[in-house]
Amino acid sequence: MSRVRVHNFSISLDGFATGEGLSAEEPFGHAGERLHEWMFATRFGRAMSGRPGGTEGVDDAFAERHEPGIGAEVMGAGKFGPPGWQDDPDWRGWWGPNPPFHTPTYVLTHRPRPPIEMEGGTTFHFLDAPPAEALAVAREAAGGRDVRLGGGPTVVRDFLAAGLVDHFHVVVVPIVLGRGVRLWDGLEALEEQYDVATVSSPTGVTHLTFGRRA
Amino acid sequence: MSRVRVHNFSISLDGFATGEGLSAEEPFGHAGERLHEWMFATRFGRAMSGRPGGTEGVDDAFAERHEPGIGAEVMGAGKFGPPGWQDDPDWRGWWGPNPPFHTPTYVLTHRPRPPIEMEGGTTFHFLDAPPAEALAVAREAAGGRDVRLGGGPTVVRDFLAAGLVDHFHVVVVPIVLGRGVRLWDGLEALEEQYDVATVSSPTGVTHLTFGRRA
Repeated sequence: MSRVRVHNFSISLDGFATGEGLSAEEPFGHAGERLHEWMFATRFGRAMSGRPGGTEGVDDAFAERHEPGIGAEVMGAGKFGPPGWQDDPDWRGWWGPNPPFHTPTYVLTHRPRPPIEMEGGTTFHFLDAPPAEALAVAREAAGGRDVRLGGGPTVVRDFLAAGLVDHFHVVVVPIVLGRGVRLWDGLEALEEQYDVATVSSPTGVTHLTFGRRA
Repeated sequence: MSRVRVHNFSISLDGFATGEGLSAEEPFGHAGERLHEWMFATRFGRAMSGRPGGTEGVDDAFAERHEPGIGAEVMGAGKFGPPGWQDDPDWRGWWGPNPPFHTPTYVLTHRPRPPIEMEGGTTFHFLDAPPAEALAVAREAAGGRDVRLGGGPTVVRDFLAAGLVDHFHVVVVPIVLGRGVRLWDGLEALEEQYDVATVSSPTGVTHLTFGRRA
């Protein structure tokens, strides 16, 4: 059975996965890039933007698990663009002509539009559907491979609350954001459904993996 | 200059330092002992309740820093007893005749009472004072040694917000409590005043230390 996986999902110590004041200029609002610096420094993160080099330690080991075995991605509207992207018929995502997904990619939105075929194997499909239904569509497209749930926090929380996530990799960055969108709300006792493992990195971030109990 | 230190301050992944529904029977409410199991398993934790044995790894190394160099403790009313202890003239704390403080110990409360001298060097004093003022009293009593800020979350948060804490050891336990009293509220960008170090333990908890920048 194909699994549903979340990778490289970064939060602050106080549990915020994104800041306040999201815009086209500030995709993460007042959080800036602070939640993702750990990843940009890795070999995986640098390769995503076409640069060589990068660290190859524990941060990279976790980061690169983003790729193997994935046949489709599901993401929330908040990941695909800044607030209001639905009013821009030309918006094609943040990622330029060749987005880093390389599979069918399902964007959950109450205002669906026709699919957009990008370079490198990514096709954006727009779905107005609840989690389980969206997942069924993505799973079909994944052809037996796993489905990556790409975020943002609202979608990850909804899928976790619905018991639909098999592997959840969360990265705690040692900053106090103070405001934004929280991950953990409504997920009391989540750990009871998972085996949880923890390892900190010399960079100061802590990787937690939630693997669903058999 | 004597420092203000917080040790072994445990929170859940979602930032709660205590649960909901605190009472004489459930000092941590629905959290039970889950936030403190890591400490009870250490040599330090076992010795506190007069038992031999216990683990001696990274959890113990951090836990035992609770003791050396401390000349006084300051704690909130919420640590000294269950809700309503102020109405019980015979309440002498949770810890039996020989509490684990062994120094003058200042309990912040809006309803002060006369001091209580316990066995083993602990004397409970009751103070109705704001953080800086309470600290001045405790510092005087500490005679040049450090002052430990013992919790609970409201008091730790107030002292952090007032910039009065020099060393803060916080332990993130990989559970989602969902409700209770949060630590991080109102502390946005706290990390900017500190050098932060992170290490996870094989037990699954993560130790963070905030050391005030020189």
